[in-house]
Amino acid sequence: MKLSKQLEKLGTETAFAVSAAAGEWAAKGNKVYPFHLGDINIPTPGNIVEAMQKAIGDGHTGYCPGGGIPELRAAMAHDVGSKRQLSYEAENVSIQPGGKPVIGKFLSAVMNPGDEVLYPNPGYPIYESQIEFQRGIAIPYGYIETEAGFDLDMDALSSAINEKTRVLIYNNFQNPNGAQSSRQEMEQLAELALKHDLWVLSDEAYFEIQYSGKPDSIANIPGMQERTVILYTCSKRFAMTGWRLGAAIGPRPVIDIINKLNTNIESCTTHFIQRAMVEALEDTEGPDIILKTLRERRDAAVAALNAIDGVSVAAPNSTFYLFPNVNNIMERKGLTDVDQLMHQALVEANVSFCTRKHFGRPTANEKNDYIRFAYSGIEVEDIQEGMASLKRYFES
Amino acid sequence: MKLSKQLEKLGTETAFAVSAAAGEWAAKGNKVYPFHLGDINIPTPGNIVEAMQKAIGDGHTGYCPGGGIPELRAAMAHDVGSKRQLSYEAENVSIQPGGKPVIGKFLSAVMNPGDEVLYPNPGYPIYESQIEFQRGIAIPYGYIETEAGFDLDMDALSSAINEKTRVLIYNNFQNPNGAQSSRQEMEQLAELALKHDLWVLSDEAYFEIQYSGKPDSIANIPGMQERTVILYTCSKRFAMTGWRLGAAIGPRPVIDIINKLNTNIESCTTHFIQRAMVEALEDTEGPDIILKTLRERRDAAVAALNAIDGVSVAAPNSTFYLFPNVNNIMERKGLTDVDQLMHQALVEANVSFCTRKHFGRPTANEKNDYIRFAYSGIEVEDIQEGMASLKRYFES
Repeated sequence: MKLSKQLEKLGTETAFAVSAAAGEWAAKGNKVYPFHLGDINIPTPGNIVEAMQKAIGDGHTGYCPGGGIPELRAAMAHDVGSKRQLSYEAENVSIQPGGKPVIGKFLSAVMNPGDEVLYPNPGYPIYESQIEFQRGIAIPYGYIETEAGFDLDMDALSSAINEKTRVLIYNNFQNPNGAQSSRQEMEQLAELALKHDLWVLSDEAYFEIQYSGKPDSIANIPGMQERTVILYTCSKRFAMTGWRLGAAIGPRPVIDIINKLNTNIESCTTHFIQRAMVEALEDTEGPDIILKTLRERRDAAVAALNAIDGVSVAAPNSTFYLFPNVNNIMERKGLTDVDQLMHQALVEANVSFCTRKHFGRPTANEKNDYIRFAYSGIEVEDIQEGMASLKRYFES
Repeated sequence: MKLSKQLEKLGTETAFAVSAAAGEWAAKGNKVYPFHLGDINIPTPGNIVEAMQKAIGDGHTGYCPGGGIPELRAAMAHDVGSKRQLSYEAENVSIQPGGKPVIGKFLSAVMNPGDEVLYPNPGYPIYESQIEFQRGIAIPYGYIETEAGFDLDMDALSSAINEKTRVLIYNNFQNPNGAQSSRQEMEQLAELALKHDLWVLSDEAYFEIQYSGKPDSIANIPGMQERTVILYTCSKRFAMTGWRLGAAIGPRPVIDIINKLNTNIESCTTHFIQRAMVEALEDTEGPDIILKTLRERRDAAVAALNAIDGVSVAAPNSTFYLFPNVNNIMERKGLTDVDQLMHQALVEANVSFCTRKHFGRPTANEKNDYIRFAYSGIEVEDIQEGMASLKRYFES
């Protein structure tokens, strides 16, 4: 029987294939160091679990409003607003089962078929998939490697804008490369959005994963709040990836539509989890422990990677990813496809990681090869063991 | 700033406006009898809550596969299959955050723009909304009132099929009218689906809410399993509406696509809730208590409605809805719009209910007026009090 033709345009997270390969290799009796996995193996803070149990005991097991319970919408408006020096009301918040649902719903709300959407590439692969599945034109923009990490390729970005461009997807604290904009870079981006009247999806999934200093949001630049929808998630900050709780925060007209999409798509987000979060949102102790653990892992992973001859990586101030350039290793190994390096590293060193290819379709003229390590799901000792094993393989 | 033009086609559950009106009336100090609410005020069985707490303690707070954890997919395949005398494998099951997500994802998987989709009207309003938002043509089919309840208007349905018809949405154990097909009616429907090569979405949300006898599924008719996707939900059977857990069960090619859509839309369904359900799915004690409570409420509501002069309603064997014809009452009151009756009943009798208009756009030539009572969220005593109040108003 025939299926929808539009499915040709539906992408996915190809990183799941890396998980499958790692799982297969482990099933053969090998100890695999799973640096491919952007998940967190740290327990969710106990106060959130307790608050949820209380919410169930209090009978919050029935439906709740599609946009979320008013108390959580208000608490998130306050939390997200105050951390960005912005004022949001409960009506600016639409609760979601995770951060990811914001991507598709935002595009459904603002994009028409044939509209061009700028999106980061390498970047989270669901941007590309959702733009194209929903009949938009996905226009990639890239990054330039620097001593300190990655800068936006602002020239390429601005020259890609034309009269069809309607939306900019921006992921500060970037997955996979850990890039973080300077205030100046963010202002340049905002200037483009204002000049060309673009909607902005600001994916701030890693806003609270900051190892020093205070994060900044593009919504905070004058003129931007009314054209920006923030993708917020509890997944990283509270080690709640499997709980599925997040939100879209932005101008009322878009949020009202996203609420209506919620009613169409999933009715509401799990009721008692929302109740629990009202209480937990103000807690800093749990998130501090999570951040401390992630910092130790970052430091261990960065040190170990830089101990490999031919690899040099800056320590990103945010996210839990490292995106080293592996040109030297590819050359040493005589490889031309970075996926070959990935396959060999699994078999030769028991180390599993993703490559640049898992983060959007590579664009023309890319000269560098990159691989991505996630250190959020591995203990420090295993990070050191795994990286030592990788060093032996990379240097041989 | 401009929004998507396609939003003109996005519908919603207008019953939320009834909730809002009831809430406003209650806020003025009135006791409202909330028969509009298709929710359940019965606690979720304790073993499910305990199993969930154990799953959190065991660390199942991270991501899980987009299609669901293998153990739950296998358990649901067994449960759903055995109750329908069908064989399903884990790969035929895609876990969802509720039953509702199946509607949109199924249409995304099988429908092309301009395809005609047959759907029940009156029926669950999200069918109409999702068909049209996703660029299909929504073709309604109706029901004929009988002594025993409602039969499908099979003549109208079969004459609505043409070369553009690709999908049939079928909701046996129907919301709002409680209709339940005879085996003969179901076979006629299957014959049409086979003859015209239609995909079928079988919304079986109320499959387990049966007050006597054993339910039947259209998937069980020869030739139908490979063209039918079953919408399954834990919401009703286990009083878990606010937990958000359900599944799509059907042929592998469609389920694989729905899994890919999961990865695009919400990553996965809450991990520890899935773990809890593996254990709970075999339990019958909890569901038996829920069903017993619902039966008492049904009997009370049916008896009280039939005590009203001019109202006559059969006791449906399934669902927790009653859909009485109110032609006599409309005439007595001199009303021409059933929404007027709804507004007056709230103010005059403190009774809140939905009308036929909340279940899809009324079609031409509808001669009868209907209102819908849900008795799943009201205790027997309040059912009796509310109906007595309604009787006074309806008979005056």
